[in-house]
Amino acid sequence: MAGNSIGQLFKVSTFGESHGVALGGVVDGVPAGLELTEADMQFDLDRRKPGQSRYTTQRREGDEIKILSGVFEGKTTGTSIGLLIENTDQRSKDYSKIAEVFRPGHGDYTYWHKYGHRDYRGGGRSSARETAIRVAAGAIAKKYLKQFHGIEINACLSQLGPIKAEKFDWSMVETNPFFFPDDTKLESLDEYMRDLKKQGDSIGAKVTVVAKNVPVGLGEPVFDRLDAEIAHSLMSINAVKGVEIGDGFDVIEQKGSEHRDELTPEGFTSNHAGGVLAGISTGQDIVASIALKPTSSITIPGQSINTQNESVEMITKGRHDPCVGIRAIPIAEAMLAITLMDHLLRQRGQNPHVNLEHGPIPAQKPV
Amino acid sequence: MAGNSIGQLFKVSTFGESHGVALGGVVDGVPAGLELTEADMQFDLDRRKPGQSRYTTQRREGDEIKILSGVFEGKTTGTSIGLLIENTDQRSKDYSKIAEVFRPGHGDYTYWHKYGHRDYRGGGRSSARETAIRVAAGAIAKKYLKQFHGIEINACLSQLGPIKAEKFDWSMVETNPFFFPDDTKLESLDEYMRDLKKQGDSIGAKVTVVAKNVPVGLGEPVFDRLDAEIAHSLMSINAVKGVEIGDGFDVIEQKGSEHRDELTPEGFTSNHAGGVLAGISTGQDIVASIALKPTSSITIPGQSINTQNESVEMITKGRHDPCVGIRAIPIAEAMLAITLMDHLLRQRGQNPHVNLEHGPIPAQKPV
Amino acid sequence: MAGNSIGQLFKVSTFGESHGVALGGVVDGVPAGLELTEADMQFDLDRRKPGQSRYTTQRREGDEIKILSGVFEGKTTGTSIGLLIENTDQRSKDYSKIAEVFRPGHGDYTYWHKYGHRDYRGGGRSSARETAIRVAAGAIAKKYLKQFHGIEINACLSQLGPIKAEKFDWSMVETNPFFFPDDTKLESLDEYMRDLKKQGDSIGAKVTVVAKNVPVGLGEPVFDRLDAEIAHSLMSINAVKGVEIGDGFDVIEQKGSEHRDELTPEGFTSNHAGGVLAGISTGQDIVASIALKPTSSITIPGQSINTQNESVEMITKGRHDPCVGIRAIPIAEAMLAITLMDHLLRQRGQNPHVNLEHGPIPAQKPV
Amino acid sequence: MAGNSIGQLFKVSTFGESHGVALGGVVDGVPAGLELTEADMQFDLDRRKPGQSRYTTQRREGDEIKILSGVFEGKTTGTSIGLLIENTDQRSKDYSKIAEVFRPGHGDYTYWHKYGHRDYRGGGRSSARETAIRVAAGAIAKKYLKQFHGIEINACLSQLGPIKAEKFDWSMVETNPFFFPDDTKLESLDEYMRDLKKQGDSIGAKVTVVAKNVPVGLGEPVFDRLDAEIAHSLMSINAVKGVEIGDGFDVIEQKGSEHRDELTPEGFTSNHAGGVLAGISTGQDIVASIALKPTSSITIPGQSINTQNESVEMITKGRHDPCVGIRAIPIAEAMLAITLMDHLLRQRGQNPHVNLEHGPIPAQKPV
Repeated sequence: MAGNSIGQLFKVSTFGESHGVALGGVVDGVPAGLELTEADMQFDLDRRKPGQSRYTTQRREGDEIKILSGVFEGKTTGTSIGLLIENTDQRSKDYSKIAEVFRPGHGDYTYWHKYGHRDYRGGGRSSARETAIRVAAGAIAKKYLKQFHGIEINACLSQLGPIKAEKFDWSMVETNPFFFPDDTKLESLDEYMRDLKKQGDSIGAKVTVVAKNVPVGLGEPVFDRLDAEIAHSLMSINAVKGVEIGDGFDVIEQKGSEHRDELTPEGFTSNHAGGVLAGISTGQDIVASIALKPTSSITIPGQSINTQNESVEMITKGRHDPCVGIRAIPIAEAMLAITLMDHLLRQRGQNPHVNLEHGPIPAQKPV
Repeated sequence: MAGNSIGQLFKVSTFGESHGVALGGVVDGVPAGLELTEADMQFDLDRRKPGQSRYTTQRREGDEIKILSGVFEGKTTGTSIGLLIENTDQRSKDYSKIAEVFRPGHGDYTYWHKYGHRDYRGGGRSSARETAIRVAAGAIAKKYLKQFHGIEINACLSQLGPIKAEKFDWSMVETNPFFFPDDTKLESLDEYMRDLKKQGDSIGAKVTVVAKNVPVGLGEPVFDRLDAEIAHSLMSINAVKGVEIGDGFDVIEQKGSEHRDELTPEGFTSNHAGGVLAGISTGQDIVASIALKPTSSITIPGQSINTQNESVEMITKGRHDPCVGIRAIPIAEAMLAITLMDHLLRQRGQNPHVNLEHGPIPAQKPV
Repeated sequence: MAGNSIGQLFKVSTFGESHGVALGGVVDGVPAGLELTEADMQFDLDRRKPGQSRYTTQRREGDEIKILSGVFEGKTTGTSIGLLIENTDQRSKDYSKIAEVFRPGHGDYTYWHKYGHRDYRGGGRSSARETAIRVAAGAIAKKYLKQFHGIEINACLSQLGPIKAEKFDWSMVETNPFFFPDDTKLESLDEYMRDLKKQGDSIGAKVTVVAKNVPVGLGEPVFDRLDAEIAHSLMSINAVKGVEIGDGFDVIEQKGSEHRDELTPEGFTSNHAGGVLAGISTGQDIVASIALKPTSSITIPGQSINTQNESVEMITKGRHDPCVGIRAIPIAEAMLAITLMDHLLRQRGQNPHVNLEHGPIPAQKPV
Repeated sequence: MAGNSIGQLFKVSTFGESHGVALGGVVDGVPAGLELTEADMQFDLDRRKPGQSRYTTQRREGDEIKILSGVFEGKTTGTSIGLLIENTDQRSKDYSKIAEVFRPGHGDYTYWHKYGHRDYRGGGRSSARETAIRVAAGAIAKKYLKQFHGIEINACLSQLGPIKAEKFDWSMVETNPFFFPDDTKLESLDEYMRDLKKQGDSIGAKVTVVAKNVPVGLGEPVFDRLDAEIAHSLMSINAVKGVEIGDGFDVIEQKGSEHRDELTPEGFTSNHAGGVLAGISTGQDIVASIALKPTSSITIPGQSINTQNESVEMITKGRHDPCVGIRAIPIAEAMLAITLMDHLLRQRGQNPHVNLEHGPIPAQKPV
């Protein structure tokens, strides 16, 4: 399959470059009858949008989404939904100097080698700007999952550089510019980011995304396991270098007697597994975390080469996020929603007698 | 897509349960002209085979692979290759008691809910026994990649419980039963495992897999990124709860000035990225790590329920690995090989003018 | 996708050559809970088997199917089903002379050019022997479709050379060696075939396949239309050179007032469309026809070339069918069943509120 | 896979309804470096456009194509190409009366049953208007195939109702409004169409499409045969009820000695096979024909039902083509081009050592 599509029954195909005419895509497989307007997508697009706070890039992106097809009289028709976001604030002159140079830590080098020809304006297709359409498509999935199955998907920033969330108060997340669930850390986050800006440097982050009320039974053995496809969709987000399900890398030092989630007639007693056993959802919360690298677009000079293999010194100017992890919150939610939606449709096709409507056995361990 | 296939141009489809008649599969998309015999696969199957040392299960699995098609006069014909491993040592009586009970940490509960009917003998399709065919298919990919492109893929155990490898001496890996690259830790590993067996418990592990001589340019933006598909294939291995590319979760605390791999006319000066930038291979070593949970098949009693939702106490008898990570070495190699092979064929189709034969710019940072 | 798989949610992957060790495949996506034994497949395999009458090849093929996985305690488990047929009567010496020669009308020339290396024994992978596994997989789909949805699929020979069926008495079909629905033509068929054998020649045929009780709503706009995927699956049968849905090529000379199937509260008044409108099933009978070419394996000498591009004269010896159309009856049924099964699962996934259980509006026009 | 995508390495995904805001799509897998402008697509869009002559509908469709991404400095970048056609002449009031009524021979009935909710304006997604994006995507494939491989694809109307082309003079095709290759029939075509308009009726047609200079070796056994995928893509065109490769349905009455294409050192002596043997291209011309039904949008009253299952009488007003076959010429070319392009990329991936540049063995039989 060519690479710009994801999903089987719920399939999202996208196009668009950072500084091209427009971004857009085709969302295929949305069941008929879902009420849908642009506003349903705009909310998440605005959460992702840069220029929202002093901690994210001051680039202004309109990110105004348009539905071009697949919705009639306010409801989805079951046919493919065309989406479009026109690029309005392009300032491509910012980028003209880097046409011949490979920025370290960026896709410039690999795109040039792969294709022999690249759109150098702002990263072209490799820019995170591309994720705007993912967020829009994910918003459709989120709405469907919530409305017809009660599934809720939320993400937060669980770590920024050395600062870890020590409590997960989800009611906090949308009230601070860091999407951070631990209000005791907001001041240190603020201070940390101010220092970072002074240094002209950037920092990595961890994002945790949770789906609640997922029915038991989603995921197909053995290659299309739910966790394998979640890993695929989360790792496809720009800057992600690691994916964990449940306890993730902590399992290395766990013993079996400690890790296994025991079962009682009232439900599981813990959720080390993160809601997936043998690749199939357990009905507990799906819990996944991702590690996002620090952006390489920083003002500290670095050495690089140009297309003639000559040594050059690089300083990335322009308006960039010192921590790309912050804006990844709605993207992580979107990608988890896209994968769950696809698996829900597949499970429904394959196992029609399984009741997907009622809730799962509740997890005892709060996240 | 139904879940028992992986890959697009190089596609592997498998079948088989732990205690069924046989395991097998179809390996489709192997180019014509590769010399291939059963012996090419048997080597890796034997590395994976249980009963090899006192640290892995004493179950005896013949794991004798047969080629049923797709090879003529010693060479592949370009048509699909049928593979078969007959199950010889089944002892299904060991498992009859658990037919109505869900073992904690296993797929029993999820399979039962998903399908309403399950093969309870040894985990059925959810057993790691299924990976034998992956290893065989991966061995075909490994041979092709090495012979036609010089690509080499090797994995090792980089951590077992609290014991981490502090040096990576690849020449050590095949000389000890732990596939461990650090010979200064062999004694403590031995001691740790003996203690664990006495306790009747199990332990998690970390496996690192590296591909050398990968050409620049593999991977398709934006959803079929090479790292996203590697995450998919590695997370599809039984017991895996986390996947990292390059520095993985360490990037959370890295700054941009530290993380970015600078470029010089002689090559990259480091490989924090793990050989992938913007989803496309850089020509440096591909480095990935996975976290494997401790097996839940332990002799320490645990609480569970049966299909009537009644409380029961579980002790898993039978012959099980105290650390399933050890046997995952050839499986991790196989899955990385399957994904690289698929991307190599795709890249060749899409970008015929890119020279995939010559080597990449060398990485300076040894792994 | 590599070429040896078909279907999305119901996916069949096959392997095997005419004179290899075995034929086999993976049938993925069968819902759990279907009672299944080898006997369910053997019936159709026997209908396809050569050596059944004097009008088909006298080659003896055991065609004994084995289920290797995916069935437990007599029922499907929802996991992938492994199938195997061992080749028993190979006589490969018959074919050794043609190793360097391209038989006209066969795949020898194209396989050799595509792969540079081919299994020349009896056509290798291009032999119709490969269809045995399709028939077995199709039998699973037929059983499921009938048992859970009341759908019945039947094919017959509607024309052999110049002799056309003028009535369609389905009760006749299994009572004569031609699978012909018109008993007034049996004598002329017999005479025609005897003459043909004397001449050492072969003849083309037309096969018609009908699915009854198909629910309205199967098929996905716009590329995965039901008729487009039926055309795909039927054209993939060896020797097929044409596919028609409903009136097929007769529509060229029809007027709109004649072709359109009018609707009344009691149902459609005709079925020119063959049960598909705008790519979606109408609930009427699905009617498709295929044209099968005469086999090129005949004893009348013909000119050809060898791999050195030298002129040679060919006579195909060995045991061949003078009309391959006759044995295509169960193959056509199998391929239609595979496609309907896949679309049924997809429709169920996408549109769960549509009732697929009850029957369609009846067609008035008998086929 | 959701139904609005076609192809594996060259993948086209589309959206849009007859009277929606816009039509569009994503063309994925175009290799980097192809010079491409809107004008390359506009030529074929204009050939397809209605309102061109008195024999096609007088609806005016702007059909102005825009490239939104994937092209930089005049060349493709290897990333996905976004396409858009805004709908300008919608006149949806023409259609408002039919909201509750099922037009016979249209998708109204099947869409309503499948989705329970439909865009009734001009057929919505089931309108042939959707094919505009196919034509644009096909034009990209045609340009690539011609420029890099010398492959040329042309279609013509080979029959309209009872009037058959008796000679194939390709130089005629673009000089008459019927795209007819036989100039001796132009007067009778003209007369026939005038009569038809008076009657308010419509007529079926046959379109023949030919690809020249196709290299030997395209097509994957056994399910992704080239002819099977051509059948799929051609049958997916609106109104198509039959597909033939080479001699098609004529093979039913052919003998083997007559049908087989003999080989000489100078090439094949005939092309009954239509350029495909065993599912793989022979290097001869690929020849395919399709049967298009007469449109059901006619002014002769017909009986139908409404959504309440009540009897109604239908007259389709509005502006419709009396022979939809005429406008299908560029659509048939586009679909054949899309399928060949996909197979070319796949073949290149799988069999890199096969020379796809040089031409095939020439066919002796002119088409």
